[in-house]
Amino acid sequence: MRIVITGGAGFLGSHLCDSLIQARHTVICMDNLLTGRMENISHLLGNERFTFLKYNVCDYLHVDGPLDALMHFASPASPQDYLEFPIATLKVGALGTHKVLGLARAKGARFLLASTSEVYGDPLVNPQPETYWGNVNPISPRGVYDEAKRFAEAMTMAYHRYHGLDTRIVRIFNTFGPRMRANDGRVVSNFIVQALQGKPLSVFGEGQQTRSFCYVDDLVRGIVGLLLVDSNKTVEERKDKKFLFSRAKDHEEPSVHDPVNIGNPRELTVIEIARLVLKLTGSSSDISFHPLPLDDPKVRRPDISRAKALLKWEPQVALEDALARTITYFKAALAHPSAH
Amino acid sequence: MRIVITGGAGFLGSHLCDSLIQARHTVICMDNLLTGRMENISHLLGNERFTFLKYNVCDYLHVDGPLDALMHFASPASPQDYLEFPIATLKVGALGTHKVLGLARAKGARFLLASTSEVYGDPLVNPQPETYWGNVNPISPRGVYDEAKRFAEAMTMAYHRYHGLDTRIVRIFNTFGPRMRANDGRVVSNFIVQALQGKPLSVFGEGQQTRSFCYVDDLVRGIVGLLLVDSNKTVEERKDKKFLFSRAKDHEEPSVHDPVNIGNPRELTVIEIARLVLKLTGSSSDISFHPLPLDDPKVRRPDISRAKALLKWEPQVALEDALARTITYFKAALAHPSAH
Repeated sequence: MRIVITGGAGFLGSHLCDSLIQARHTVICMDNLLTGRMENISHLLGNERFTFLKYNVCDYLHVDGPLDALMHFASPASPQDYLEFPIATLKVGALGTHKVLGLARAKGARFLLASTSEVYGDPLVNPQPETYWGNVNPISPRGVYDEAKRFAEAMTMAYHRYHGLDTRIVRIFNTFGPRMRANDGRVVSNFIVQALQGKPLSVFGEGQQTRSFCYVDDLVRGIVGLLLVDSNKTVEERKDKKFLFSRAKDHEEPSVHDPVNIGNPRELTVIEIARLVLKLTGSSSDISFHPLPLDDPKVRRPDISRAKALLKWEPQVALEDALARTITYFKAALAHPSAH
Repeated sequence: MRIVITGGAGFLGSHLCDSLIQARHTVICMDNLLTGRMENISHLLGNERFTFLKYNVCDYLHVDGPLDALMHFASPASPQDYLEFPIATLKVGALGTHKVLGLARAKGARFLLASTSEVYGDPLVNPQPETYWGNVNPISPRGVYDEAKRFAEAMTMAYHRYHGLDTRIVRIFNTFGPRMRANDGRVVSNFIVQALQGKPLSVFGEGQQTRSFCYVDDLVRGIVGLLLVDSNKTVEERKDKKFLFSRAKDHEEPSVHDPVNIGNPRELTVIEIARLVLKLTGSSSDISFHPLPLDDPKVRRPDISRAKALLKWEPQVALEDALARTITYFKAALAHPSAH
């Protein structure tokens, strides 16, 4: 398959490039390098099945030749990034998604949207199934990312229902692994870097908020599975223009075109993560406590029964192993910052 | 003041044009006439303080000369319309809002966003204060409008916080009055037209879902009040780049830059509206019952204490008077369809 990945030089995007290249696909990686990094894909640059284009997908979007699939992963994705670039985050979620959908339609290609557990906001049910509508403050500073992704889902479903486009939506829960940036403010990378540098681990609030962390290899396997699984509907069956007064949809089995949670349902408190990182690094760092950010979700845990049913997917890598591999990466990254 | 109104040929937009022209302002009305109608503004075309531009605000947007304010009212707004034009609805909410905000910033002008009670979705609290985060299904067919407006609010607040733009957000609840289209599928106009034509009044579900209906004159007075009230913050005070770890905002008094509900808190069931329309028209029509549409909100009623506090606004026109005026309009419109 010939596949476009926007945001392909980012943390997740670059692992997707690796996985698809390894499976003998041809990859066109686009990234404006706002938060993505050339280091993440430099090892692929000599590969004849890999092309990199420095590109802002909010601008005019064109690709020569046929395409089989487009995966839209471009977006600032850590709270620190989308608070620094609120308007760019909104633009790539709305205008960027629209451009990539338009290209998918023009090429008759499959489209996969990287959505997020942030669409659930500060959830009032735990764990979150895909049928949960979420609890998001639209005007909060951190609402820019959540609303951009909710909008992107709505636009994706509109193309699916109106144009019959073969679309997929993955809701990605917290993920960690090699190629996270040392300074992007996410919990696991923060803790590992602080532990390795002998600095206090920064916990916000009392650390009793819970998170579930998925290792990047497991996540990528789930996303590629969702991309490649066949649709059981024809273009005409996907079009759904009589939906207004139909309730039949309520009782339909979810299809591969509905959102699918991919994440690890093992739930830990932030303080438990901190202690595990201290143990695995052998660090003698302290833990320091800071005020909780605005609208920080108190719980977040995927219900993955849909991914199990549709994709036979579930996480396989044990948390401790995954942390150990990530610690190994950061040890090297901190020792040779220019190489990472 | 010199004021741009996008969607100015629509139901609400045209009443706003009237009100602002009457108050001696200069109005530039933009509309692509997808759901707006020239009949709504034809009486203003000879006025030297009124300009009409047939324009899709998602395209390149330019206005010569200084501007004091821009009001973004362009959007399909009845469920029937946004289900027919889902992608246009999403585009004008995201791309259109972004273009109009950009023009407001370039002109140093005030920006007012027409948002909606639909941001509350199928609310789990009743009445809805502006602090309620809503209950919206992002992937439902009717989610296109709700998510487009939530996105537009997020984008508006991002321009406010990032660029210090003087922004206002009005959340408009169900409104009725002259210039509604006879066939756009909204409850009050549907009932009046059916009653006047001697057809059965179409009630969806059992008619026990509640709505609150505001007369358009009351609504327009509230919106103009929100547009004209002075900001109590300087540009620098509006910029808020340190918001991530600040909780102070939680305890601040709402300002004119926060969303403001404008609507009538008098709550009626749909069946009560139907009976009132039958009484006021003197029609002998029956009531017919149909299946409830997907994700139809069961309750919807504004908490207007913020509008009372900030704008000294509350509705003044009695429901029965307002319905009588609207019935008079539709009698004429149905008798002379070309003139309306």
